[in-house]
Parts: sequence; C-alpha cells; structure tokens
Amino acid sequence: MKTTILIHCNDQSGIINAVTGYIHKNRGNVVYLDQHVDKETDVFFMRIESDFENEEFSIESFKKGFQKELADRYNMVWSIHQAVPKPKMALFVSKYNHCLYDLLSRFNSGELEVDIPFIISNHIDLQPIAQQFGIPFHHIPVTKQSKAEAEDAQLELLREHQIDFIVLARYMQIVSPKIIDNFPNKIINIHHSFLPAFAGAKPYHAAYKRGVKIIGATSHYVTEELDAGPIIEQDVTTVSHTHSIKDFIAKGRDLEKIVLARAVKLHVQRKTMVYNNKTVIFS
Amino acid sequence: MKTTILIHCNDQSGIINAVTGYIHKNRGNVVYLDQHVDKETDVFFMRIESDFENEEFSIESFKKGFQKELADRYNMVWSIHQAVPKPKMALFVSKYNHCLYDLLSRFNSGELEVDIPFIISNHIDLQPIAQQFGIPFHHIPVTKQSKAEAEDAQLELLREHQIDFIVLARYMQIVSPKIIDNFPNKIINIHHSFLPAFAGAKPYHAAYKRGVKIIGATSHYVTEELDAGPIIEQDVTTVSHTHSIKDFIAKGRDLEKIVLARAVKLHVQRKTMVYNNKTVIFS
Amino acid sequence: MKTTILIHCNDQSGIINAVTGYIHKNRGNVVYLDQHVDKETDVFFMRIESDFENEEFSIESFKKGFQKELADRYNMVWSIHQAVPKPKMALFVSKYNHCLYDLLSRFNSGELEVDIPFIISNHIDLQPIAQQFGIPFHHIPVTKQSKAEAEDAQLELLREHQIDFIVLARYMQIVSPKIIDNFPNKIINIHHSFLPAFAGAKPYHAAYKRGVKIIGATSHYVTEELDAGPIIEQDVTTVSHTHSIKDFIAKGRDLEKIVLARAVKLHVQRKTMVYNNKTVIFS
Amino acid sequence: MKTTILIHCNDQSGIINAVTGYIHKNRGNVVYLDQHVDKETDVFFMRIESDFENEEFSIESFKKGFQKELADRYNMVWSIHQAVPKPKMALFVSKYNHCLYDLLSRFNSGELEVDIPFIISNHIDLQPIAQQFGIPFHHIPVTKQSKAEAEDAQLELLREHQIDFIVLARYMQIVSPKIIDNFPNKIINIHHSFLPAFAGAKPYHAAYKRGVKIIGATSHYVTEELDAGPIIEQDVTTVSHTHSIKDFIAKGRDLEKIVLARAVKLHVQRKTMVYNNKTVIFS
Repeated sequence: MKTTILIHCNDQSGIINAVTGYIHKNRGNVVYLDQHVDKETDVFFMRIESDFENEEFSIESFKKGFQKELADRYNMVWSIHQAVPKPKMALFVSKYNHCLYDLLSRFNSGELEVDIPFIISNHIDLQPIAQQFGIPFHHIPVTKQSKAEAEDAQLELLREHQIDFIVLARYMQIVSPKIIDNFPNKIINIHHSFLPAFAGAKPYHAAYKRGVKIIGATSHYVTEELDAGPIIEQDVTTVSHTHSIKDFIAKGRDLEKIVLARAVKLHVQRKTMVYNNKTVIFS
Repeated sequence: MKTTILIHCNDQSGIINAVTGYIHKNRGNVVYLDQHVDKETDVFFMRIESDFENEEFSIESFKKGFQKELADRYNMVWSIHQAVPKPKMALFVSKYNHCLYDLLSRFNSGELEVDIPFIISNHIDLQPIAQQFGIPFHHIPVTKQSKAEAEDAQLELLREHQIDFIVLARYMQIVSPKIIDNFPNKIINIHHSFLPAFAGAKPYHAAYKRGVKIIGATSHYVTEELDAGPIIEQDVTTVSHTHSIKDFIAKGRDLEKIVLARAVKLHVQRKTMVYNNKTVIFS
Repeated sequence: MKTTILIHCNDQSGIINAVTGYIHKNRGNVVYLDQHVDKETDVFFMRIESDFENEEFSIESFKKGFQKELADRYNMVWSIHQAVPKPKMALFVSKYNHCLYDLLSRFNSGELEVDIPFIISNHIDLQPIAQQFGIPFHHIPVTKQSKAEAEDAQLELLREHQIDFIVLARYMQIVSPKIIDNFPNKIINIHHSFLPAFAGAKPYHAAYKRGVKIIGATSHYVTEELDAGPIIEQDVTTVSHTHSIKDFIAKGRDLEKIVLARAVKLHVQRKTMVYNNKTVIFS
Repeated sequence: MKTTILIHCNDQSGIINAVTGYIHKNRGNVVYLDQHVDKETDVFFMRIESDFENEEFSIESFKKGFQKELADRYNMVWSIHQAVPKPKMALFVSKYNHCLYDLLSRFNSGELEVDIPFIISNHIDLQPIAQQFGIPFHHIPVTKQSKAEAEDAQLELLREHQIDFIVLARYMQIVSPKIIDNFPNKIINIHHSFLPAFAGAKPYHAAYKRGVKIIGATSHYVTEELDAGPIIEQDVTTVSHTHSIKDFIAKGRDLEKIVLARAVKLHVQRKTMVYNNKTVIFS
C-alpha cells in the first residue's frame, strides 16, 4: 500500500529519525522523503512517501500508533493519504474557456487523477464544453441580491458530492467566507498577473498601462483577502511595446492554463503545505 | 558615415515613404528601419540606421533639410546620432559592488561603448574598485542636512564633464528633481524587484514575506515618482520555500547586474524611446 | 481592405521607399512595416500590413502594378494576402492527444483563425476527440507496405479540400517527399526536444540519459531531412535529477502544445518567411 | 561544528533511519536532509547538514564509527566535509575575460567561499586582470609539441598548492587524461552551448547556421570525452533572426558567466553528486 504522510510541528531534534523508525518498525519502506525547516518560525515540515507491502498492515492501527508515539510527543499536525479513492474536484467557471478546456483535456487523458462530479458556473456560456466532456453543469447565476442564496446552492452541491477541493478556473466572482471557511487551503484560484503586482480587476490592462516587459500568472489558495492567499505556482512570459492589450490577454491565456494545471497537480499529489500564508512545495 | 535617426510624431499616412525618400535623395542607404505606432495615442515612432558614404555628405545640411522638409511638415520630434564620440556615462554607487564590477568589466572589455569620466558615491567602500579599474572616484556623502549641497556638487561634476547620461548602479539615495530635470530620460536605475511589485525599500524582504515563487529585477528611467519611471528591461528567476532572504539577495544580484547592463546597452545604442511613461525598445 | 505583403529579394538601396511609395500612390496606408536584411547572403525581407480604404481599390490591378513597377525591377519574390477567406489547415495525428486538444480548443474559441476541414490519423484512438469537436476524422493506417498508398489517399484529401497548410500534431510517421514537395514550407511539425539536440526517436529518453537540466520543444517546417527543417519556435523548461522519464514526458507535453500553437499562429498571421533553411519571424 | 555528509549506496530499507539515528546518538542535530533514489539503477543518494554542538565531539571518532556502523554495513561511498578550511580553486583561462572577471568579482565580494592560489593561462592577455585582483598568474603556453610538458607544469602547480578543484573559465584547450584522472569530477568547464547540441568548437556559429531561436550555456564536470561529462547547470536565452553571430556571442557571454558561477557555487557547497555520468544537484 502506497501512502503519503504530511507533517508539520515545531522543529525539534530527532524527528526524522523517529518518524522513519516508526515506519520501519511497521515494515514500511521510505520511497521518498522531503523536509524543510522554516528558520524564521522554527517550524518543521516533512512529506514522506512509503510503501507497506506486508499483508497484515492495517492503516487504522498505523494511524493510532503514529498519533500516540509521534504526533502527541512532538505536537505534530499530520495527515496520511492514499492514492485511492481519487480526490473529488469541483470546477467553478464563468465565461473564459481556456482553463476549462485545458483541465478537462488533462482529465480525459488520465493526466489529472481526480474525479470531477460537476462544473458550476454563474453563466450559461460554457455549458456546451461541459456537455462535450460529459460533466454535469450547474448554472447558478450570481447577482448582488442573489449571492447568499447562490452560495447556499453551491455549498449544497459541494457537500452532496463530498467535494475535496475546488478549482476556480477563471471564475469571475469573489468567493465569500462562507465557502472559504469550509474549504481552508482547498480552493485554488488562477489570477492573471504576477502577484502581488496587479491584484484585483483587469490586471492585463494595468500591466499594459504600466509598460511592463514581462507578464505573469499566479495560482494561489483562496483566503478572505482578495488575491492575497498562499502562492502555489507562478510563471511569466515576455511582452514588448509591440503587444496590444489583446496580445497580453492572448499570451496570458497560455500562462494561466499551464500555471493553474501545475498547481492543481501539486495539490492532488499532496505536494503543497501551507503555513503563515506561504506554501512549502515539495518536489 | 553611420547615423541613427529617432523620430516620433502623430501617426500620419506616408511618413515612412517621406523619410526614406529624403535619405535616398541624400544618397544614404537605409541599413535598418524599425517602426511602431501606439494605437491608443496614435503616435508614430521610428528608428532608422543609415549609411552615407558619399564624400560630399554634410550632416549639417542634412539636418537643416530634414527639419525643413520633414520635421516641420509632420510636426516631428527627432534627433540624429553618430557613433563617435562615445556618450559620457556617470556612475552613481553606494555600497553594493556587483553592478559596479559588472559594468566596469564590460567597459574594460570594450563591450560597453561609452566613456566613464567618474564614479560618484555617498560611501567610501567601493573606492578600491574604482582604483582597480582606474576610474576617478568622488566621495560625496549625503545626509538629510547635506543633500542639497551634495546634489550641487554632483551637478557640477556632471556639467564639468559634459555627462550624457547617468547610471544608478545600486545607488541607495533618492535622486531629487534638481538632477532629474537636467537629465530627463537619461538616468537609468536598477530596482531589485519585478516592478510594480515591491516598489520602495527592501523588496527582497517583501517578496520573501509574500511567498512569491519568482523574483525579478527592473531597469527604468528615473522620474520624480519613486520606482515608477518608464521600464526599459526586466527579468526574473525562480525561487522556492527552500530559499532564505539571503538566497533571494544572492540570486537577485545576478539578475540586477544583467538587467542593468542590458538597459545601459539599449540606451547607448539609441534603441529606447520614451512616451507616456512607457518605452519603445527597438530590436 | 486589409492586406499583408511579404517580399524578399537581394538587398538594394531604396526598396522601402519604392514599396511604401507604391502603396501610397494606391491610396493605401502602411499600418505596420517590419524589415530584415540577412547580412551573410545580402537578402532583404519585408512584411507590410496596409489598409486600402478607397472604394475603387482593385487588388488585381494593384498586383499587376506591383509586379511591373517593383517586383520586376528589384527581382522580388513576393505575395499578398487578405484575412478572408481563412486558410485551410489539415491536422495529422497519431495517438497523443494533448496537441490535438489544445489546437481544437483554440479553434473552438475563435483564437485560431483557420478552417479545419479534417483530421487524418494512422490510428483510430483519437477519433472520439474529433467527434467531440465535430471535425471529420479519416483513419488512414500506415504500414511499410501501405505507406505509398496511404500517402496517395492523404494527398487526395488534401487536394480535394484545397488545404493550405498541414500541422503534424505529434503525427508519429515520417512524411515522404511526395507530400513535402506539394507543401513546401507549409507543413508544421512539433518535435519534442530542443533541436538540434535529440533529433529522431525518443528524445525524452535521450535527454534523461544525458542528464540535461533543461528540456525543450521545437516547431519547424518539415523538409526532407528529418527534424532538420527551418525552426519557427522553441521553448524550454527546467528539469532535475528528481524527474523520471515519465515526468519529462509530462512536462514536455505542456511545452509541445504551447510551442506548436505559437508556430501555427505565426504561420496563419503570415509572420514567417523561410530562407536558407532558416526563418525570419516578424513581430 | 557544522558538517555536510554525502552518501551513496545501493538503495536499501532503513538507511535514513540508520544515518539519522547515528547522528542523533552523537548528539548531532540534522539541519537539512535531502535524499534521492535513482530508480533505474536503484542507487540511493543523501546529503545531510548537521550541527554538533557538544564540546566532546570528535570528528575522527565520528568518522570511525560511521564507517564501522553504517558504511561497512550498507556498503556506502561517503564523505564528510567542514566549512573550514575553504576549498582551493585553480582557475584556467585563455583570452576571454568575462568569466574570469565575474568569478574574481564574486571572490572579492566574499560571495565565493574559496581560496584562489593562482590562475593558469596559455596566453598572456588576461595577466592584467589577475594583477588587478592580486592573484598570481602563471603563463604556461601550450603547443602541440609542448602540451605534455605544459601539463606537467600545470600538475606541479596544482599539487604544490594542494588544489581541490579546477575551473576552466573559457580555457580554450582540451585537458588531457593525465590531469582529469587526478581530478575526477573536480574539473568544472563552461561550454557555450546548450549541450548536447553544438558540442565542440564554435557553437555560436553552428547555432546561428541552424537558425535556433534559443541559445544556451552548460557547465559540466570534465571527462575524457569532449563536452560529454556530467551536466551541473544549464541556462538559455532567446535569440531571433535579427541577431548576428556577434550578438549571439554577446548574449552568450552573460549566460556563460552566470551558469559557470552557479555551478562553482554548487560544487563548493557540496551540493553535487555524480553517478552514471549524471549529477544529483541538491537544493
């Protein structure tokens, strides 16, 4: 059985030895170990992939022992994950289709190891793409008046399908705390700028006006403060005076879809840990 | 005789034809022509390299004719430049040596076709490097009280040596309007961030705190608003959670020196034009 | 009427002036002009976008005059293009779907201004994607024995639909001279390496074995020599010892689809010119 | 006392636990641990930074115990390193000065934590730079006839100064096995192409001829096969049809110096391990 364990706690001497010893004692084999210490806050992070090939291995007793022998002693926040069942991912979209196409193509190819129970949109425009890929599409319009109600409907769908995480694939609405609080560090957004430059609306217009020579895209976990959550992935591309705003947008589309897909894959592979509004991204 | 002509004016039909016709009439050969129209403001920009190989060619009469036949008619702002004499560049530094070393190494190698009559610094630390490369070094300390006086001393040096443009190679002082007004779009600064993100002091610390995955450097012309002048050149490099602020600074040094050197070369080759607080960078 | 004119000829004094003069005389307005001289071979290249807004403008008489007044005189190879009708693009694929998905998504979004009369494949695997996007799919198997026959079938389809250019979107067969000769500099291939490194089969395996720290993708026009045609576009991404061949392939997929799409767009916009087995790529 | 331990051996269960346990037993604290398993060859690599702050700690008895309790048992190849004394680096140069200037500037700034007992060159041209930085310069001309003799002279200098590693900073001579065998994986070269493309002489000319859109630089350990040793670091920059060979060379210089400096720093920080003609580069 393949497992991934994520741990963070105050940095203390002997943790790696203790954890690998416990895995060893349970006849597990450490396949990959990556570790990081945040020197500012003295917090220790670790990600371990292990194989447990013995027949008697019980994940439940492993967990109980881990809690008792390690987590209690070192005061760890920890979790253990298995590859199956696949995490359930909800897609929120509006009118732009490039990120949606890209994620669904990867999903169809088997590159993205998730289930996608549904797509939610505040507009009807992308329904044909959902149909094209055979994914249920829920049109939930959002207006100032209907926002609270719309979010209740969203939450109900999220709960009903036991969604694990949400991807905002150019969803052009601000997600309210009601939803964020239910999915802490589990909502992934793509912002079409090199954050923290050009947070907020119309970043390509702002970048054009400022005359930058490079534009970017940023994927981050959603927190209450707009475009200020922990950054998962960023990438950039060059622009010049010859490019119009329309060119910025076209070049940006390619950035956005690649950066968002990378962030989603990192999340699915349990390679992200969040602390202090920053991410540790394991390799 | 090799010349470079820079032109900007309102966009009008027939300009390229008129200018190339005038060059042709003067028995010149267009070696390279690059042109750009800013669609927002309908401003036309052009850079032309031409050779005039006939013996009777007179730059003075060429200029007179250009003004009369073209510039007056199309309401052009224009200038003509020759490779000789080399432009005179003043270097302003403080305590960081990487940009200074890099520029002086390029100067010594003949890569940078300028004269460097002197280096000004508000600290004494880098004097040995100036001596190492045989460039006069003027130590002009700057305090709140002495700032006005210091800038008078700087201006005097700049005038005395007929300086064409200034490079702030990590000069850690804000340059006041008194100097900027005398060198409009002729003071090149290197800022150690991907502007407009992290303008102002300590950008690497701010980038670290924000948890970005990419850091940058920006070279720009200095205007009165801090770190807000026309951007000439930008570049970036990736960082991760494994990098400390010290690592950001070390990685940034390499960006800064390369980006500043590129900007200086573009300026020296007359490949930059400024309009609306943005640059046109010809190739 | 918007037109794009492409010209190449031996470099001679006065060409730009002559061509812009002719456009001017026909009451056209030069919207964009880009020019290049290959110094090694003394060949002049030019791309001009012009608007002809007068009602009496006749493309036929413009062409006749251009040939007589300019092309004959300067010995030019030249062509003039209009935005309508859209060029007809044939897609050749095999089993990999990422480039196909990406191109069809862009086509569906209106980003790619072409017609796609059909997809040809030597395998049946990607037929569902063709159906999903409503594009006719022709399964033409290729074996050693059937290759000549298969190519006849391909040629017939290409002719019947008056195809303008072909995109090999990870088509895993070598295209023979019979087809290449009919589409000179009109077949665009994507090779999954940073050419000329790792030409031929299994480039990711070769890159892994060599221990490179960067992998790339290259889009080029197909010529008789395998993977040696004029390069249109290249891009790269970093890899490390932590990446397996499978990781190389996954990272490479994102490169391949972006690089191929960029090359196709450059071709469609008439921004590529080929000379001496190299490309001039206008901005 | 700060130490860095490098280990490689066949992959076996329990190694991390055993090594961290041994460090722990010696009252050491693991500051950073990075590990990698080459799945093809089943070889395990580990780099551990540890602090031993107790006064009684003896590096000699630690080594003895490590060999007996761990290395013999797991059949490890291993080494332990301390920060002091700094490694001794010899510089070999010819006529190009950019890498030399860059490395000496970093050395002077304290960025490069090495000693540089001398510079060897087969030409006299760069002697003034050595003098400028106060480093002894040995002019050892190399001709076909004198090559064996010249290498004896080089070896004598290398031995006399107990040189730890050699940096070929654009040294334009092939280093013979006599020297390579004495410095296995301890000679760092910078090649001015994106290897394996354009190995051998005049890579920029070859890149220009091929019409590539990206050029690169590669730093690698020198082995007997020319330009085929384990790659430490690579980087690239974009070029276009507008760039001449001279432009390629100028852009390449900036790549070369940055890539070489990064490789040297990785080597000095013991972050490189070599196996199977490839490198593991720890972060």
